Amino acid sequence: MLTKEQYMDVALGLAEATIGQTSPNPSVGAVVVKDGRIIGMGSHLKPGCPHAEVYALQQAGEAAQGAELYVTLEPCSHYGKTPPCADLIIDNKLKKVYVASTDPNPKVAGTGIQKLKDAGIEVEIGLREARAKTINRTFFHSIRTNQPYVTLKAAMTLDGKTATATGDSRWITSEPARQDVHYQRSIHDAILVGIGTILKDDPQLTTRLPQGGNNPIRIVLDTYLRTPDQANVLTDEAPTWIVCGALADAEQFREKHRDINVIQMETKKIDIHSLLTLLGKKGIQSLYVEGGNSVHGSFVESGLFNACHWYIAPKLLGGLEAFSPVGGKGPILMRDSISLAIDSIEQIGSDIKIIALPKKEEG
Amino acid sequence: MLTKEQYMDVALGLAEATIGQTSPNPSVGAVVVKDGRIIGMGSHLKPGCPHAEVYALQQAGEAAQGAELYVTLEPCSHYGKTPPCADLIIDNKLKKVYVASTDPNPKVAGTGIQKLKDAGIEVEIGLREARAKTINRTFFHSIRTNQPYVTLKAAMTLDGKTATATGDSRWITSEPARQDVHYQRSIHDAILVGIGTILKDDPQLTTRLPQGGNNPIRIVLDTYLRTPDQANVLTDEAPTWIVCGALADAEQFREKHRDINVIQMETKKIDIHSLLTLLGKKGIQSLYVEGGNSVHGSFVESGLFNACHWYIAPKLLGGLEAFSPVGGKGPILMRDSISLAIDSIEQIGSDIKIIALPKKEEG
Repeated sequence: MLTKEQYMDVALGLAEATIGQTSPNPSVGAVVVKDGRIIGMGSHLKPGCPHAEVYALQQAGEAAQGAELYVTLEPCSHYGKTPPCADLIIDNKLKKVYVASTDPNPKVAGTGIQKLKDAGIEVEIGLREARAKTINRTFFHSIRTNQPYVTLKAAMTLDGKTATATGDSRWITSEPARQDVHYQRSIHDAILVGIGTILKDDPQLTTRLPQGGNNPIRIVLDTYLRTPDQANVLTDEAPTWIVCGALADAEQFREKHRDINVIQMETKKIDIHSLLTLLGKKGIQSLYVEGGNSVHGSFVESGLFNACHWYIAPKLLGGLEAFSPVGGKGPILMRDSISLAIDSIEQIGSDIKIIALPKKEEG
Repeated sequence: MLTKEQYMDVALGLAEATIGQTSPNPSVGAVVVKDGRIIGMGSHLKPGCPHAEVYALQQAGEAAQGAELYVTLEPCSHYGKTPPCADLIIDNKLKKVYVASTDPNPKVAGTGIQKLKDAGIEVEIGLREARAKTINRTFFHSIRTNQPYVTLKAAMTLDGKTATATGDSRWITSEPARQDVHYQRSIHDAILVGIGTILKDDPQLTTRLPQGGNNPIRIVLDTYLRTPDQANVLTDEAPTWIVCGALADAEQFREKHRDINVIQMETKKIDIHSLLTLLGKKGIQSLYVEGGNSVHGSFVESGLFNACHWYIAPKLLGGLEAFSPVGGKGPILMRDSISLAIDSIEQIGSDIKIIALPKKEEG
């Protein structure tokens, strides 16, 4: 018989397996346990499909009566695309429910748990909460702030270079690290680059994994709409949103590229805060920023980012004029840099991947 | 009873404990084993003191007869400051000698082992050889090349910055990482910086550890002898060598600073290869380069370095004009960067330390 933490880990494993396929919903797993045996398991698989608890309780059938449920997120209490899970749990007469994390969604926010308690079901909250919050960090963040969770991605040499003085950057990292980047693309709602990257590298910005994977929405920050007509990012492989400033001729661009979503900001320059608010409204919960030093500079200066995914290749390039991952103006004093905390360090192929989070970020 | 690998690890531990206090001699440990018991242990403690085998055999006394000796480096066969250890082993009638690594010193180079074999003592070579070679990597390198083993050290932010555009760099890393740097200074024969660092930071370049530690020789690359008279590096806390080019007025500088060793190169600019040859002749086996981007650029361009010690602080500075650890001209293409292999990654306080070695380097 497993411990309660181990059962919750099984449920968390089910949730983790679906990261990237449930947006705008969170990833949730559920396990029904009776007499020391798992009698039902389920995961929320995609928007519009049943919630994790529904699948797990269906599997358990009548045996669910008197059983314990382990669920990674507070069961819902409202009618959405599916009926409330709290009601289903009550109808199935479960004895106890373990909840890893409450739901920050204002439509739920404790009401699911209250409903269970009112029906006389024991509830224990917070089992493996940190892991549960990590799984849904983009969902939690966007529910709380109405802006997407922003991940800055960079690949650099050990001496902090992203390109030579002439702009050559192919390739910095090895194949396994580049595949990890494609996987990251596949689990993000949208990917963002600047016009500099379009003009220099003409990237496709699609997910290219041997096993396939979702293409995120491609967002280009292009203040003056300089994206060339033949740019790879304008193909129909994935949706593309071009964000421009108030001075750009958006109408002309729209006429030429009818499938492209041209978003014109009200200001001459693109303000990061306004952009993220706008993307939040359009349902983007997770944004993967593969910017050059200029775009990264804007995000770092605004302080509006939630994670850094840094790939470091074990090589030295050298060069006073070579490029570095974060540009912009930069502070005058070292002590005015932005403090991060290391979240993880791993070796991917011959490279190192560091995930670091801003210190203020709660989770 | 330990395995033979474990006994050798005990000897290697003895050697490791003395890294930095035996130069120009290697660090060596020895263990005498009889009937499954350690009966003698020793380490070479400092130049002029007895070799590891002498101490270990003294401890063993008459019981050494018929015992086994584990020694991390081939016993010497020549008369130096002490009589040959091979003779001592033969006189003590040991049964078998395990040698982790042969001695690349042309005065020894297999002759110690041959002497033992000729006397009928069994010899097994290569037990835990990789670890043995790592312990004496600077000694092995300098014996082989007649140049010091060069370690490039850098401390940078996660976005590859060593200073803001105005040159501010205090502090990038946290106290524990800076203490590790002081420890590294204490185990190196010499430390090297450029005149840029002297003019900008006026460092003392001494070892400042709570527990104390040797001061390395301070070497400044100062082509035109611009080191100010009041520079901290000119104090008498540690020996200082100032290296200048052919155009500098070395005589005038020498007159003003009689305790300073002014080394004038034959060329106008300081050539790294000539410099390392000269330092090798002067007995410098290990050189710790704490350069700014210009000095590091010279070493990287010349390809004359053996290890990189990189401290990465989890912070983002930003700034197109901020400084980066390796300057110089730099190649035009990314593929012409210098490939390294990761040797180790560790967290020191809140920072990350990466040790990487050039791929061509054998050990």
